[in-house]
Amino acid sequence: MPFDVTPHLRKDLPPPAAAWGGYPELNFVGGHNNPGSIPSDALAEAAKRVIAREGASLATYNMDNGPQGYLPLRRFLADKLKRYAEIACTPEQLLITSGSLQALDLVNDVLVEPGDSVITEAQSYGGIFGRLRRAGATWTGINVDDDGLKTDQLENVLADMKARGTRPKYIYTIPTLQNPTGTVMSRDRRLALLRIAEAYDTMIFEDDCYADLTWDGSRPPAIRALDQSGRVIHCGSFSKSLAPALRIGFIVADWDILSRMLTVKFDGGTGALEQMVLAEYASEQFDDHISRLRGTFKENCDAVVSALEEQFGVAAEFRVPKGGIFIWVKLPDTVDTTRLAQAAAAEKILINPGADWVAEPETGRHSIRLCFGLPSPETIREGVARLADICHREFGLPERGANVARG
Amino acid sequence: MPFDVTPHLRKDLPPPAAAWGGYPELNFVGGHNNPGSIPSDALAEAAKRVIAREGASLATYNMDNGPQGYLPLRRFLADKLKRYAEIACTPEQLLITSGSLQALDLVNDVLVEPGDSVITEAQSYGGIFGRLRRAGATWTGINVDDDGLKTDQLENVLADMKARGTRPKYIYTIPTLQNPTGTVMSRDRRLALLRIAEAYDTMIFEDDCYADLTWDGSRPPAIRALDQSGRVIHCGSFSKSLAPALRIGFIVADWDILSRMLTVKFDGGTGALEQMVLAEYASEQFDDHISRLRGTFKENCDAVVSALEEQFGVAAEFRVPKGGIFIWVKLPDTVDTTRLAQAAAAEKILINPGADWVAEPETGRHSIRLCFGLPSPETIREGVARLADICHREFGLPERGANVARG
Repeated sequence: MPFDVTPHLRKDLPPPAAAWGGYPELNFVGGHNNPGSIPSDALAEAAKRVIAREGASLATYNMDNGPQGYLPLRRFLADKLKRYAEIACTPEQLLITSGSLQALDLVNDVLVEPGDSVITEAQSYGGIFGRLRRAGATWTGINVDDDGLKTDQLENVLADMKARGTRPKYIYTIPTLQNPTGTVMSRDRRLALLRIAEAYDTMIFEDDCYADLTWDGSRPPAIRALDQSGRVIHCGSFSKSLAPALRIGFIVADWDILSRMLTVKFDGGTGALEQMVLAEYASEQFDDHISRLRGTFKENCDAVVSALEEQFGVAAEFRVPKGGIFIWVKLPDTVDTTRLAQAAAAEKILINPGADWVAEPETGRHSIRLCFGLPSPETIREGVARLADICHREFGLPERGANVARG
Repeated sequence: MPFDVTPHLRKDLPPPAAAWGGYPELNFVGGHNNPGSIPSDALAEAAKRVIAREGASLATYNMDNGPQGYLPLRRFLADKLKRYAEIACTPEQLLITSGSLQALDLVNDVLVEPGDSVITEAQSYGGIFGRLRRAGATWTGINVDDDGLKTDQLENVLADMKARGTRPKYIYTIPTLQNPTGTVMSRDRRLALLRIAEAYDTMIFEDDCYADLTWDGSRPPAIRALDQSGRVIHCGSFSKSLAPALRIGFIVADWDILSRMLTVKFDGGTGALEQMVLAEYASEQFDDHISRLRGTFKENCDAVVSALEEQFGVAAEFRVPKGGIFIWVKLPDTVDTTRLAQAAAAEKILINPGADWVAEPETGRHSIRLCFGLPSPETIREGVARLADICHREFGLPERGANVARG
């Protein structure tokens, strides 16, 4: 008799996933990287070298390097974090995770209980909201301007919360190349944020996943670098700076926090080959690679900016990103971007509707996020032009494109 | 001011982890593998080949193979499962996971709600109990004999539960080289289990992690292979058959279940390099590798069996395993194995106290699990001899060792 799983499933599951149909060519969602920028030959050589040399260590869980991860990778990271982000940390203050997504999970798993509240930026990485919801937390979004998170607004919100007897578990911020706004928090704001966090005795969770990708490589010190107290949990990833299919992220935190995270990391360790190959490759070649990659992404960014100007004109408002792989675009108030994204998806063009990338969905209803790491400049130009056509068809805007009236 | 994380932590966390001090040489815990059996050179060549050929695909999440995992690995698995376990499945019925631990998590995440009950074997993989506890489930253990899970007892338990209005979410079984008892469930029992699961409309979760490791390679068909209904979720792993640091497991299930698991797999995909290298290596060399590995483990098993006979004599009762990497040893009722394990750990000898590997801790108080995949036969003999000395010192037993009176 055929079996029906339905009555056995949890009651609160999302609808089932659709079968995989492959990514369309006009793909402006997800933190994908540039296929031509993957250093395949160098990774292949690094893989061969490190596996031939240390393969026997695969016989033990965590290669007998302990649950914090492969020691050469932690050593590389400690050095890189010093040089790139001014963070002073030892391998003992590092935990290698399966992508930065596991870092988000571990932070929530040790800090957040149902009913807790968290502060985020008003526009933020979409995945954080679902994770907070599953952890039973609520969140409040703080606006971002050209200097990053608005610390004056933050202070008012924390004062209000305190008056109501609430202390948020942490302030989640993406200070450097903020997702999705592309802004970089100034050094002064970072210091103000630290002062406020101390005054209200809350923690800061600094997500630095995109921080290596400023166009010229310069950036303010990480918030973790400016903190002396141990109040800041820092995370990063190689998804954006090398390859997202390689699932390697990391956490920098003091031992009193890491020692708790280790007790809720139930995965038997982060993948050994990913860690070994990355450490072997990156220790020698990361600096050169990231320089080249910034140039590629800058070309893609230039393409998306000029295509938006050409195809959308004044109908598209945006900040030109200071680096990274995405741009946050405000369209006129008559454009419902959730509907726009659906109409575009029907024509195999993927974009992120703004409602998924904001603390309060209503505030993102007229914005979109376009990721430009994966497509070529040519594909970017084609995609933006077709998106403008679809937008005009659905909403009558933009009226002109490529200096010609539409429709 | 130094920051104190304590008031910010969840209230229900386990005690903090200790700093990593490395594995001791006399290590009889954990599913480690034999370092000399890791095919380092062949893995290194496979890694170089596949990364050089397909490295560009790392630029997209899941290598554009979709969230079920790298397609060549799923194809290899579909073929291997047919040849080794008589399971007929397509790549669309396979989900690659980060070790079989993630398979356990995904099963619980789609099926188990707080208050649910689950059936396990009376002795079972220790990690399942913590996972069920965290999911808010309770469990009932069914005894195992030489033919595996006792289906007559199972039927009585299910009838009792039904009378009380309870239906367990699933029956978790390790039918082939059961952990920790090393037994293999007979084909008749597998058929009986399926009949019973259908009669009581519950699911079966078949954990086949050790199944490739029977001494002669023979084994009954997987329960999944004997089922026509889709009631059986099957999982497996390469931790025991290749290397535990390489985090690759898999689930075989029908699409109505997999499509739900995909919606709660929040990790951004399973590690690409692990999948690619494994597929490249295993497609050509897995069969030869596993044959050799069985021989190595058999030598280790012979060493542990003869050392137990020599050092413990009649004080140690055990079944000689039919394969695998562990042995379940019953010591006399005067020996508290939790205390024994502590005393041994103080002398850098690691063993699993039985209480951690049983559904009801009291029933494991006089048993131990010894893993023999990692240490050499010589180290095994030394470890068992020292364990017997410690046991004699603490509990006065065994009285004789190596045919000489102790103490």
